[in-house]
Amino acid sequence: MVMKVHGSVFSAPTMRVLIALHEKDLEFKFVFVDLRAGKHRKELFLALNPFGQVPAFEYGDLKLFESRAITQYIAHVYEDKGTPLVCEGKANIFSWMEVEAHQFDPAASKLHWELVYKSKIGMATDAADKEANLAKVLDIYEARLSQYKYLSCDCFTLADLHHLSALTSLMGTLVKKLLDARPKVSAWVADIMTPPALAKVLAMRNQQ
Amino acid sequence: MVMKVHGSVFSAPTMRVLIALHEKDLEFKFVFVDLRAGKHRKELFLALNPFGQVPAFEYGDLKLFESRAITQYIAHVYEDKGTPLVCEGKANIFSWMEVEAHQFDPAASKLHWELVYKSKIGMATDAADKEANLAKVLDIYEARLSQYKYLSCDCFTLADLHHLSALTSLMGTLVKKLLDARPKVSAWVADIMTPPALAKVLAMRNQQ
Ligand SMILES: N[C@@H](CCC(=O)N[C@@H](CS)C(=O)NCC(=O)O)C(=O)O
Ligand SMILES: N[C@@H](CCC(=O)N[C@@H](CS)C(=O)NCC(=O)O)C(=O)O
Repeated sequence: MVMKVHGSVFSAPTMRVLIALHEKDLEFKFVFVDLRAGKHRKELFLALNPFGQVPAFEYGDLKLFESRAITQYIAHVYEDKGTPLVCEGKANIFSWMEVEAHQFDPAASKLHWELVYKSKIGMATDAADKEANLAKVLDIYEARLSQYKYLSCDCFTLADLHHLSALTSLMGTLVKKLLDARPKVSAWVADIMTPPALAKVLAMRNQQ
Repeated sequence: MVMKVHGSVFSAPTMRVLIALHEKDLEFKFVFVDLRAGKHRKELFLALNPFGQVPAFEYGDLKLFESRAITQYIAHVYEDKGTPLVCEGKANIFSWMEVEAHQFDPAASKLHWELVYKSKIGMATDAADKEANLAKVLDIYEARLSQYKYLSCDCFTLADLHHLSALTSLMGTLVKKLLDARPKVSAWVADIMTPPALAKVLAMRNQQ
């Protein structure tokens, strides 16, 4: 029985799962889902995720979807393998995982849309208020990271890891300036972006 | 030491936490945060949640925010008290909690905005495509609930409970028609909306 991740290495939620699997040193098979060809809307994929979005995860009879659900499953079931991604007894991880999902990610995605997609397809961009929204989130991160080494506590956890895929795609944009302007945030970004797991996932892109 | 929930009984995320506490038969003190008076943007509240949103949870030195973080904390720490809200060994709860947060809630909130707020302030509503989005989610729920009694498995879990506050506010709108049109979904709604915990929270509204 082998773990399978169905997705695309260029999809941020798929990357999130791949990074977690590499952190845990788990073997898995990557199954490419051709989004351009609409494969995610076909019956075969809908049986894995009825919402038709990548990634989906398969392990024997177990079928999971939603990237943060898959990473949490992996972190809990393989708690003692590879990098610990939860910090037992620390309840703050719950809040900071939700912060990534409900505060950081919406702000980062909207800005990414303005800066990357809209300029790629030649649409006028209107990034100023989206930039201000992300800046507000980053100010709160700066304060938090002045108290703790990582977002939830002094250990690296899923609450940090979940940011990696979005950070990777924003790094080549003006967002880098927003990060650089905040010393604690930049040190945190530099720290969490170096582990080999992320490099392994980026290397998968080159093999595509 | 007493648990404190800071929030407003008319806020759906606050309700989510109050319902979980009642399900767990936990004693707590409710601290009203006057959003109209901007109390959530004052220093006192920002020390509980730097993002300035209700609810916030306090228990001795522990400070948590984000409603789904608080419910997960309560469900895990008080696993053996009151209603079990997680189903040990069932990984699907991870996926279906994320579904509520990333599929149901955005669709339901956008429709709620059209149907309740916009009509209240006399703005023209444009609910048709928002209704179609929620309908798509409910179709997937209908299929899921034909296989299992509840969303994640045959036990009531947080994945179901997290819907209660949004369902309560949508019940008086045309969304009821969307629910009624789906037999499994309506049976599920009727089932999860009856527990005394929800009634206790609604009763708190009348005391305000
Ligand atoms: N909340 C989901 C989001 C997944 C998602 O948006 N996937 C995109 C690719 S990055 C997708 O499959 N889009 C296709 C579609 O929605 O039709 C997760 O975290 O897994
Ligand atoms: N994702 C948050 C959402 C909290 C939220 O949106 N709270 C609203 C009240 S329903 C609030 O405090 N709004 C005030 C503001 O954003 O300024 C949660 O689940 O706790």
